[in-house]
Amino acid sequence: MGLRVGVVGATGVVGRSMLRVLEERGLMVDELRPMSSARSAGTTLAYKGEQVPVIEATPDAFSGLDVALFSAGGAASTNLAPAAVAAGAVVIDNSSAWRLDPSVPLVVPEVNPQAAADHHGIIANPNCCAIPLSMVLNTVSEMSPLRRVLVDTYQAASGAGRLLVDELQGQRRALAAGHEPPRTVYPHVLEGNVVPGGWIMDAAMADQAPPVYEDAEAALAYNQEELKIVAETRKILGLPTLAIACTTVRVPVEIGHSESVWIETEGSLRPAEVRARLGESRGIVVQDDPGAQVYPLSRNAAGTDDVYVGRIRRDLSHERGLALWLAADNLRKGAATNAVQVMELLFS
Amino acid sequence: MGLRVGVVGATGVVGRSMLRVLEERGLMVDELRPMSSARSAGTTLAYKGEQVPVIEATPDAFSGLDVALFSAGGAASTNLAPAAVAAGAVVIDNSSAWRLDPSVPLVVPEVNPQAAADHHGIIANPNCCAIPLSMVLNTVSEMSPLRRVLVDTYQAASGAGRLLVDELQGQRRALAAGHEPPRTVYPHVLEGNVVPGGWIMDAAMADQAPPVYEDAEAALAYNQEELKIVAETRKILGLPTLAIACTTVRVPVEIGHSESVWIETEGSLRPAEVRARLGESRGIVVQDDPGAQVYPLSRNAAGTDDVYVGRIRRDLSHERGLALWLAADNLRKGAATNAVQVMELLFS
Repeated sequence: MGLRVGVVGATGVVGRSMLRVLEERGLMVDELRPMSSARSAGTTLAYKGEQVPVIEATPDAFSGLDVALFSAGGAASTNLAPAAVAAGAVVIDNSSAWRLDPSVPLVVPEVNPQAAADHHGIIANPNCCAIPLSMVLNTVSEMSPLRRVLVDTYQAASGAGRLLVDELQGQRRALAAGHEPPRTVYPHVLEGNVVPGGWIMDAAMADQAPPVYEDAEAALAYNQEELKIVAETRKILGLPTLAIACTTVRVPVEIGHSESVWIETEGSLRPAEVRARLGESRGIVVQDDPGAQVYPLSRNAAGTDDVYVGRIRRDLSHERGLALWLAADNLRKGAATNAVQVMELLFS
Repeated sequence: MGLRVGVVGATGVVGRSMLRVLEERGLMVDELRPMSSARSAGTTLAYKGEQVPVIEATPDAFSGLDVALFSAGGAASTNLAPAAVAAGAVVIDNSSAWRLDPSVPLVVPEVNPQAAADHHGIIANPNCCAIPLSMVLNTVSEMSPLRRVLVDTYQAASGAGRLLVDELQGQRRALAAGHEPPRTVYPHVLEGNVVPGGWIMDAAMADQAPPVYEDAEAALAYNQEELKIVAETRKILGLPTLAIACTTVRVPVEIGHSESVWIETEGSLRPAEVRARLGESRGIVVQDDPGAQVYPLSRNAAGTDDVYVGRIRRDLSHERGLALWLAADNLRKGAATNAVQVMELLFS
């Protein structure tokens, strides 16, 4: 007997990736039920050579499903996931709605697979930067406990959804033709630019959210993406007080997030050993020969399921410091692939 | 009496910016003598509404000049600057040839103007990332001594010269038209990509260079751009043992370098005070209202002479940590403008 799988948000960039990943992997799927908002319902999506109709995601749409993969934003997850659970499905949710809920496991199968067993119907799929970061940090922490982590990100447009990818491509065409780049979706032109921005909570909203840092006032200067990466990485690693901070930056790339990571460990680690251990870690591929211009590239990571790591070297500003660079497909390992791997954990 | 000014490498991206900056600023220039390699000599360049002939840069080409601005690469500077000095010109050199020579001042006018007075004919103009970085660090260090600095860069194609800008624009046109992006100049496609690479010395070459880090073997994992930023920032600030490391990254932007900077200071600094002090610092403009999506953007920095700073906040991974973001035009304040300002220091 195969599985009956619903995909909520199936027409979005992550939803489409979920369909591709479900096609590729070995899991038996008897029924694939793509769902979307009323606006996109009625269209069809390709799955295993057939056009499958997209139905509207409503509380009644989940009957008979074993699993519901959600990637339609926090509001859709909050509104519909309880109905999916009530209908008997396990929800694997790619929104941030439940990620920090203490009763909801936040799972990266290579890092904390055991957490998946403790679910009460919902398992959260982490942020697209937190997944590859936690995989790399997990391996390093097995060599020596982490003392502090700093991260600067180089994030692709698709992390913000299909509309920004379309806008980026439209801006590219305009600039290539010598025209002013059009902009409606995003606060700034992204093509030919670098945008260190994100959504910042005001103090009233922050009061409603679980505090990420002790100094809640100072934390207001961080954007939501930065706070997600901090809080989720701590939860995945089981290190609730890990000293970690990051600056998140959007770059004119369609698919593929990169991260520059500075790590302080309790003991001093030799880069050669870190390289070897990362190379043996499941889901991680080392690309590290900078003299030959070999290092992880977002463009090469796009379309693949691995996390690529390179530029592994001593951080020569600190006696127990390590520096490295990683890249991964934010729609696949950063979202869809990880969610399907969680499904495999539960049903294989 | 105005100045007679030679510009070596006048047809390059920085050379052309030098002509624009010389036009814009108040300094009286009686003669402008653009020079280039034999290949580009014979063409003309626009300067103050006239077409000025470009002559070949040879050892005999400097007679009568008061100043020679060099930006034609290290070999041209090594070969020709001594002749320019012998002919009586002061050389302001934008290559890396003499930057770390203890007898050559490395000057950012807002940081160490006094150093310019000690020249013996040559003054070095710093690396395009080191200039804005040292300006920001200088202000912070006046508030509390620096303990450690980590930097990740987001560098524009023009930092690698005109050929990479042309290649990037060609790749943009190809991708906009749905074609495979052409690549001949750079090791990787830059459009739609993020490249954490650079030129790495082999051990034999490293033996010839002044060591940047005590651990010379570990330093071989850093590329030349990273080592330049470290060594030059230390020299400009007069802090030869400053703990500092960086990862340099090329992004698909024509003009405008950005840097994410993590700073540890001896005392704890309040972001509001840092913001105020940076705002009072000459050459620095604070753009820091992230809730309103106001922060420095490379696209906005392009074409201007200031260093823009924002995202100023506590680094919540460290009790005396500060995080910030900066952007500046790498061809202007990162190169041409700084060189002309050095000239103004000497001749105003």
